[in-house]
Amino acid sequence: MSDKAKQLYDELIERMKEVSIINSCEALLGWDERTYMPRGGSAHRANQAAYMAGLTHKKFTDPRMGELLGELAQSDLMKDEFSDEAVNIREIKHDYDKEVKIPQKLVEEFTHTTTMSQGVWSQARGENDFPKFLPWLEKIVKLCRERAECFGYEKEAYDALLDEYETGSSVEFVSKVFSGFRDDLVGLVSAIGNSKIKPNLSIIESAYAVDLQEVFGRSAAAAIGYDFGTGRLDLSAHPFTTGIGPGDIRITTRYNPNHLGQALFGTLHEAGHGMYEQGVPTEHYGTPRGAATSLGIHESQSRMWENQIGRGKPFWKHFFPRAQQMFPEILGEVKFDDFFLAINDVRPSLIRVEADEVTYNLHILLRFEMEHALINGDLQVKDAPSAWNEKFQKYFGITPPNDADGCMQDVHWSAGYFGYFPTYTLGNLYSAQFYNKAKADIPGLEDQFAIGNFTGLKKWLEENIYVHGQRYRAEKLVEVVTGAKLDHAPLMNYLKEKYSVLYNL
Amino acid sequence: MSDKAKQLYDELIERMKEVSIINSCEALLGWDERTYMPRGGSAHRANQAAYMAGLTHKKFTDPRMGELLGELAQSDLMKDEFSDEAVNIREIKHDYDKEVKIPQKLVEEFTHTTTMSQGVWSQARGENDFPKFLPWLEKIVKLCRERAECFGYEKEAYDALLDEYETGSSVEFVSKVFSGFRDDLVGLVSAIGNSKIKPNLSIIESAYAVDLQEVFGRSAAAAIGYDFGTGRLDLSAHPFTTGIGPGDIRITTRYNPNHLGQALFGTLHEAGHGMYEQGVPTEHYGTPRGAATSLGIHESQSRMWENQIGRGKPFWKHFFPRAQQMFPEILGEVKFDDFFLAINDVRPSLIRVEADEVTYNLHILLRFEMEHALINGDLQVKDAPSAWNEKFQKYFGITPPNDADGCMQDVHWSAGYFGYFPTYTLGNLYSAQFYNKAKADIPGLEDQFAIGNFTGLKKWLEENIYVHGQRYRAEKLVEVVTGAKLDHAPLMNYLKEKYSVLYNL
Repeated sequence: MSDKAKQLYDELIERMKEVSIINSCEALLGWDERTYMPRGGSAHRANQAAYMAGLTHKKFTDPRMGELLGELAQSDLMKDEFSDEAVNIREIKHDYDKEVKIPQKLVEEFTHTTTMSQGVWSQARGENDFPKFLPWLEKIVKLCRERAECFGYEKEAYDALLDEYETGSSVEFVSKVFSGFRDDLVGLVSAIGNSKIKPNLSIIESAYAVDLQEVFGRSAAAAIGYDFGTGRLDLSAHPFTTGIGPGDIRITTRYNPNHLGQALFGTLHEAGHGMYEQGVPTEHYGTPRGAATSLGIHESQSRMWENQIGRGKPFWKHFFPRAQQMFPEILGEVKFDDFFLAINDVRPSLIRVEADEVTYNLHILLRFEMEHALINGDLQVKDAPSAWNEKFQKYFGITPPNDADGCMQDVHWSAGYFGYFPTYTLGNLYSAQFYNKAKADIPGLEDQFAIGNFTGLKKWLEENIYVHGQRYRAEKLVEVVTGAKLDHAPLMNYLKEKYSVLYNL
Repeated sequence: MSDKAKQLYDELIERMKEVSIINSCEALLGWDERTYMPRGGSAHRANQAAYMAGLTHKKFTDPRMGELLGELAQSDLMKDEFSDEAVNIREIKHDYDKEVKIPQKLVEEFTHTTTMSQGVWSQARGENDFPKFLPWLEKIVKLCRERAECFGYEKEAYDALLDEYETGSSVEFVSKVFSGFRDDLVGLVSAIGNSKIKPNLSIIESAYAVDLQEVFGRSAAAAIGYDFGTGRLDLSAHPFTTGIGPGDIRITTRYNPNHLGQALFGTLHEAGHGMYEQGVPTEHYGTPRGAATSLGIHESQSRMWENQIGRGKPFWKHFFPRAQQMFPEILGEVKFDDFFLAINDVRPSLIRVEADEVTYNLHILLRFEMEHALINGDLQVKDAPSAWNEKFQKYFGITPPNDADGCMQDVHWSAGYFGYFPTYTLGNLYSAQFYNKAKADIPGLEDQFAIGNFTGLKKWLEENIYVHGQRYRAEKLVEVVTGAKLDHAPLMNYLKEKYSVLYNL
């Protein structure tokens, strides 16, 4: 590479590392706000966060960044498109271009509107009053369209929004993968509903002491490979994972004293996110090459540990006797098969965040169709409730009794997160395809799980996923890792096989 | 005031508030580092803290700050020297002038040397090897003298160092107050040592369950007025108080499972600091007018609640029955007077941080004399151990068996904190003088304590101390509040009266 390009590149990286340091301070402000901050600290915390966000924006959109990226994008550093340098230039440029395209006025209007509308949404949801929320949602859809116009797109506006969460993805790609999946899923859910086998839910919905749940959850997170020496597990109202910096990746959970699964599967989920963050190459910290790739790939890591592993038989071969020992009064006399069926209860339900691993995807497909139609104008915002209910009846066989548990249940739209929902199901799809490959690569993988050894899979994930950082975008990463394009078959087959046995279909 | 001056002043305040926001993020980094940060996060945390410190320095020493302060110091805003504007200009200018006087090279050398020397000190103390620490301490004394020369001073170099912790104070002032105090103290300590009355220490040195200690400590902190809605109490290796911002003032403590007093008095101490921080005027947040004044005044607040209140009879009239209820197996049969004597054990001991409220001050007086002599050259660093031991024998009647528990016991000198120690005893002196005035102003104050009501004193502190922020410097504040100059008599009389009764002198 030329000396000049090298020099410009070094300056770019130095500037990015400065942005990352500021970002990482912002991350700590956020973690603290959601875990330990006293109530009285809110107003000042908002000032701190706004200052840091402004500083990040100022440093990241410095005109010098544009000059550097402009020159570097034309330099010989781009020759090998997957070299560290090319990856960093590509991804920094992608984010820079998006960030400078939105006028400051629109940024402020969007922030202000979504801050206000989350308050309105919360109240409207509580009162089951969609008309109260309607003008806000209309404004947000309009602002999202404006953002998409600023970003620019080739085929349709929604692509520009989706790209914020799943870089490089598109409606065309997502729709193609989702479409066949939906009909298969509806069939499977219906078949399970018709099965005579019904889980005994009292097995997991019982009085599980929170302090013991915590010990159990921590031991499970540590067993699968989440490193507590470079992490911690705290309580928060909504579980999350946050990276404060290399060597400091934190997760949270919440305990339901009358349910074993909520905290446990939530902890495994966040531990999956956390292990990914702990595993990206620290020598590239502060640059895309050292950062996790898309939200969808991130979700594939959390879902794999939560579902493929955490709701799987081999995991429980090891952990069920331990759970019996810890909760002898509840589980002492319970049979393995009954317990296993109870943690794999599948049934249509109204609320996405409480859904099982099968119906969950239907919740997402419905939302993707809805928000895609809202953005491209095929659906008017005022018609959202009826459209939601129609689709819900079609996919789940039930009609939501009200909008609070229907189209108003999620915070996402009120926060302006159009384009976010598809990443959840993309994550599930990636996860199944990755996991099949891991099983093929590692003979006897699940036998190892059954004796409490999860290092084989973690090592595989390190070598095949974590190590790449953002070298590949999601679609490409799937191909590089599995040798095949993303397809819904691996996830559908996994669900079919597992649940056909469980529900005797 | 002129429009021009008003405009410059507003710009100054805006810049200060920006510095404060950055500082407050740094404060959260520090709090987290000492409470919850996973071990793996240290290296990145150092980067974050260094970046934020650099940013603070850059913003605070911006040449524009110098211009503003230069003009404002000559403006009509200074007419009333205790107006909000005059106070802010005076104190910001004081700090600015000090900060720009130290060349960057010296800042870096000082930071580097003290960082390294703390490591050496820790090891040398462990090995009782003063010669190993000697060259580092020599270098630090030399660097401190250089700092003093940069800062400038009227009479002697030590004044410039002391001013960093107790703005506007001087050797002359401190020596005058300390000198009479020392001889009186030595006499009192000796008399107590000769008393036949000896506390039964097993009363407080017993197996006090940590979880119950925590409940007890929290209830005591809340009772005296520390607001948990704008604060929190956590664990740390060394207790501290930190202000993250208005509405968010946090304290920490540590528990000794075999001692009731260590955590409890430590918690009351930090709660005293915390209440001061919670009480300064939030409308002036980010400026000196809204900040606590000197370290000594801060210490007066912590010591008052720890000692005058927390080790006093009225406090325990209320809390002793509660302690008996919480720890019935240890305290159930103990008599009030025996308990009270046990928490007021006075005896010469080697270690400052474990000293009682009487001998504590002798530890400080000794350190002040030592470091003053080291800075002005009357004492060579190599002679510090023998000088220490001679003084120790003279004041305490015992000779330290080694340097580890002698002149090497504190971290301060290795960290370059010359000028810090006197603020501890200044705090005790202020505290006694303030408390006398509070008792004179509020009839029946201690009767209120005896029924668990501490609001009278807190209100008095709010109205007489907290409300002023940095309006007055310490020496002046004492005069404004108590109508008299600082004197050692109030503290000495308090100690004499209390301990003459307890030890039948």
